[in-house]
Amino acid sequence: MIKSEVVNEGLECPKCSYFIKGRFLPQHRCPKCGEPLLTRVRIGFVEGLQSVTTLCDRPSTYLSLGEGSTPLIRCFNTYIKLEHLNPTGSFKDRGASLAVALARELGYELVIEDSSGNAGLSVATYASAHGIRARVYVPSDIPEGKYGMLVSVGAEVIKAGTRDEAHDAAIKDRDGYYVGHVTNPYFIEGMKDIALEVIKQLSRVPRNIVVPVASGTLILGLWKGFNELLSKSLIKSLPKLIAVQASGYATLSKLVNEVIEVGNTGSNSRYADALRLTKAPRIRQVSEAVNASGGKLVIVGDDEGVKALKELWSNGLLVEPTSAFTYAATKALVTKNEVRPQETVTILTGSGLKYVSVVRKLLRSNN
Amino acid sequence: MIKSEVVNEGLECPKCSYFIKGRFLPQHRCPKCGEPLLTRVRIGFVEGLQSVTTLCDRPSTYLSLGEGSTPLIRCFNTYIKLEHLNPTGSFKDRGASLAVALARELGYELVIEDSSGNAGLSVATYASAHGIRARVYVPSDIPEGKYGMLVSVGAEVIKAGTRDEAHDAAIKDRDGYYVGHVTNPYFIEGMKDIALEVIKQLSRVPRNIVVPVASGTLILGLWKGFNELLSKSLIKSLPKLIAVQASGYATLSKLVNEVIEVGNTGSNSRYADALRLTKAPRIRQVSEAVNASGGKLVIVGDDEGVKALKELWSNGLLVEPTSAFTYAATKALVTKNEVRPQETVTILTGSGLKYVSVVRKLLRSNN
Repeated sequence: MIKSEVVNEGLECPKCSYFIKGRFLPQHRCPKCGEPLLTRVRIGFVEGLQSVTTLCDRPSTYLSLGEGSTPLIRCFNTYIKLEHLNPTGSFKDRGASLAVALARELGYELVIEDSSGNAGLSVATYASAHGIRARVYVPSDIPEGKYGMLVSVGAEVIKAGTRDEAHDAAIKDRDGYYVGHVTNPYFIEGMKDIALEVIKQLSRVPRNIVVPVASGTLILGLWKGFNELLSKSLIKSLPKLIAVQASGYATLSKLVNEVIEVGNTGSNSRYADALRLTKAPRIRQVSEAVNASGGKLVIVGDDEGVKALKELWSNGLLVEPTSAFTYAATKALVTKNEVRPQETVTILTGSGLKYVSVVRKLLRSNN
Repeated sequence: MIKSEVVNEGLECPKCSYFIKGRFLPQHRCPKCGEPLLTRVRIGFVEGLQSVTTLCDRPSTYLSLGEGSTPLIRCFNTYIKLEHLNPTGSFKDRGASLAVALARELGYELVIEDSSGNAGLSVATYASAHGIRARVYVPSDIPEGKYGMLVSVGAEVIKAGTRDEAHDAAIKDRDGYYVGHVTNPYFIEGMKDIALEVIKQLSRVPRNIVVPVASGTLILGLWKGFNELLSKSLIKSLPKLIAVQASGYATLSKLVNEVIEVGNTGSNSRYADALRLTKAPRIRQVSEAVNASGGKLVIVGDDEGVKALKELWSNGLLVEPTSAFTYAATKALVTKNEVRPQETVTILTGSGLKYVSVVRKLLRSNN
């Protein structure tokens, strides 16, 4: 197979276009305007879609634990991409594998992250595989199960108050490389292959792609991937980005052109734990991508989220509660004739096997 | 892509060669001699390895939850097949997807299984996806976590005394189709694609393949797969089968030509829970396959199993304890110069994300 030639030229500010040669800035932000940076890659010779094996050049230290190349299945008359089947049970592995390899290439022996969930486990797992240490700042009320997983992969876990306080503590820690998925450009870079995989698996570009948005790495990575393929004329159209957020945490609601609410969105979500982020430095970038694609935001209430969770589990898709909110959005859009199911791909991001006790409680509820 | 033409001709007794046309016998055993049956397939036109998409013809009711096509990674200078990244966290999904689809095709609305672990979750998940019921007989001391998973996918769970009593109760239950992975030919049929995938992923036949053995579905499926490819001249050699069992449960020890013991094998294993089977109706078939391949049996003690678990988790491979016994065997064989790591594929079968509290206890131990 002929590999495409992809060169990482440097980091670029998507707001003021400031460009920095090379691949590394510890704070991940534009020195001029403060916006979180993106990688700028140059795609050289490409023979065709099938010859593209990866969109990003990987650090020499890159180490695979089997991330990526997840299944796309047809279910409920629509298409579902099973990102929860990644090695640590979430899509974060695509980003963590790149970001931690880069830290290693740069000689760091400690990576720092703030997260209580999927990103923390992913970063800690890759760090361990690389033989370097991981320090993960978590909220003090982290559930025992999540705590146990982080400890089991050898992470140093620091309980640091609220979720926001955990974030603040992590960015102030100068002992190592702050991997920080919320701003790190390589987390986004790592997501790009999902776009490529979906196109190969469907043999076409889907008309709609339904994606959960918290920090925005997944949706921005997809958008970057589709646009780079378009720029090389490997595809002829772009999908509409359907962003999904949970009630009470709809940081996109004032920024995107079209918003749909599903279910009871009057109170703050209790169950979409991976979507409960109020500080998202890239949210402006996300809104621009959604608007440019002609897409929209769907805000989902806990009632519809839990209903969707029951439907997914009873159909054999063992995802975490947060992922059910994404599917709830797809269901609602299909019902409203806003999208055709067979033209739509929904991305399920996290495994429910890590959170069975939580899932079980919700499945039993009358919600 | 040109698909190979594969026709399921019927069921065949591997002991007395009795042949039954059609694909179904409820008890899965030879009416003449009682031996568990195998499927007999005829492989027709095949253009080449890359054109083979599957080795078994699937029931018209077949439904994919994303099983199969798992990653093969290079790690520890050897090759590891990540079967624990299947949809319900184990290789059983390959067999359950076929067996439950067949039950559905035959019109059954209830499948019956006995298992407390991976097979039970897998069968119950596929049954739910097909909209039929699953009844799983489990030992009364089933851990709460495993019980919770079965209930969460909608299974009717019946606590029935010991593991053996659960088995006896299941085969006496005539309310539905006994899926019974321990004897069901379709569980074996479903494993065959692993052989094909490994050859494609390595671009060659590995010299050794290291496989855990309890009921024997995995190793028999692999052997059937490799032999069918050989019979069509799609490959030129067969791998040696290295069977792995846990101390105290080495049902193969008197049947295979070569046995190696690793670690303290003086007492019954406490940690290799998926290998603690004393009744394995296909064990004679397994021993014949191992001997015919020039392979051997490795019996692993808990001390080496736990050491291997620590090594796997610290290298980012989040498997269940049982899978670590398999890797412990590979390690020992490499150390003894019995196999070369780069010529060896080890199959990791079950996810540790389902059993984090158990894993964590073992990782902390001084074993």
